[in-house]
Amino acid sequence: MLGSMLRQASTTLDIDTPGRALVEITRPVAGWLGHAGIETGLLTLFIRHTSASLLVQENADPDVRGDLERFFARLVPDGDALFRHRDEGPDDMPGHIRTALTQVQLAIPVAAGRLVLGTWQGIYVWEHRRRPHRREVALHLLGE
Amino acid sequence: MLGSMLRQASTTLDIDTPGRALVEITRPVAGWLGHAGIETGLLTLFIRHTSASLLVQENADPDVRGDLERFFARLVPDGDALFRHRDEGPDDMPGHIRTALTQVQLAIPVAAGRLVLGTWQGIYVWEHRRRPHRREVALHLLGE
Amino acid sequence: MLGSMLRQASTTLDIDTPGRALVEITRPVAGWLGHAGIETGLLTLFIRHTSASLLVQENADPDVRGDLERFFARLVPDGDALFRHRDEGPDDMPGHIRTALTQVQLAIPVAAGRLVLGTWQGIYVWEHRRRPHRREVALHLLGE
Repeated sequence: MLGSMLRQASTTLDIDTPGRALVEITRPVAGWLGHAGIETGLLTLFIRHTSASLLVQENADPDVRGDLERFFARLVPDGDALFRHRDEGPDDMPGHIRTALTQVQLAIPVAAGRLVLGTWQGIYVWEHRRRPHRREVALHLLGE
Repeated sequence: MLGSMLRQASTTLDIDTPGRALVEITRPVAGWLGHAGIETGLLTLFIRHTSASLLVQENADPDVRGDLERFFARLVPDGDALFRHRDEGPDDMPGHIRTALTQVQLAIPVAAGRLVLGTWQGIYVWEHRRRPHRREVALHLLGE
Repeated sequence: MLGSMLRQASTTLDIDTPGRALVEITRPVAGWLGHAGIETGLLTLFIRHTSASLLVQENADPDVRGDLERFFARLVPDGDALFRHRDEGPDDMPGHIRTALTQVQLAIPVAAGRLVLGTWQGIYVWEHRRRPHRREVALHLLGE
């Protein structure tokens, strides 16, 4: 395989969140990939925030997202007396911890022009703050 | 350094798991890398499932894997009354949460023809379901 | 965009930690990147250890790091009776678990010659052991 055709593409997606929720972004990501004309390569997503994160999860039963939310709400309680950093309210520090426990970046191989996601996998921005935010996700694609 | 020699390779490993356990895959991954003839580059692993994950962990004392298992079993109890998603049994939703708390992808640099893993690091598929499964791990390699 | 200019660079940073703490490494990473002459690309960091990890977190209020530390100390207690692996003391197994719950690798796109980190994001080595260690972080850069 010749390497001389390898090239890069990049963009930034602006994702509006409704407050704390898992927001699926598989479609806009796949849409951008589809226009890039890359058959084989590597897509990297990076979220430029410290209280929202990236997650690959099941995109079939909505109860999965509800259960994830309930589990993390119990694991990292809003307003926990342990926290000193409260500048932006009781969900401020939990947002940072939930981000630490999940991911700020994902690297997903591309084959036959598509992400190699499994049948039930979707890509999500997980908003950890209670109020709506606009979140920036940088995409970087390398391939041929 | 000339860039014109950069090239890609990719494959999929099928990993049979015995049910909930950490299954080391360092050897098949390194074996495939060894045949690719890449001296310097980047290897990305991506698991195409939502209830099994990837982990880099100590591969010396088996008690480490036992303790990881016991810790996660306590942190995310099977059959927790919190969970509504129970389609496939009491270990269904815990599988999703354990996956969210660990990784679906790993990117590991390659130098001198080898993964830059530390002395005690191994690569594992962490099966979170109680029954055996066949898991697909997509590998993507870029380098020269 | 022509791909023929794509090239790689790699190095290893040695990071001295003071014992359990979040040690910011944004500056040495960005410094190395600045000398590589890459405008657009992908930087991957990989920590070669099983009881220290990598994290992107807020680098403004130090209380965030303190709260992260307190939260993880409560979540994964040193000397927990659950743990059998105690070769190196009560903080040995917690170091492995805290590493599993965070990251051993980070991939961050590069645009306009800089990491696409958000305004408040810094890159940290999280030392999970109580005593000082020297930690190796492998850096791999690909771009043009």
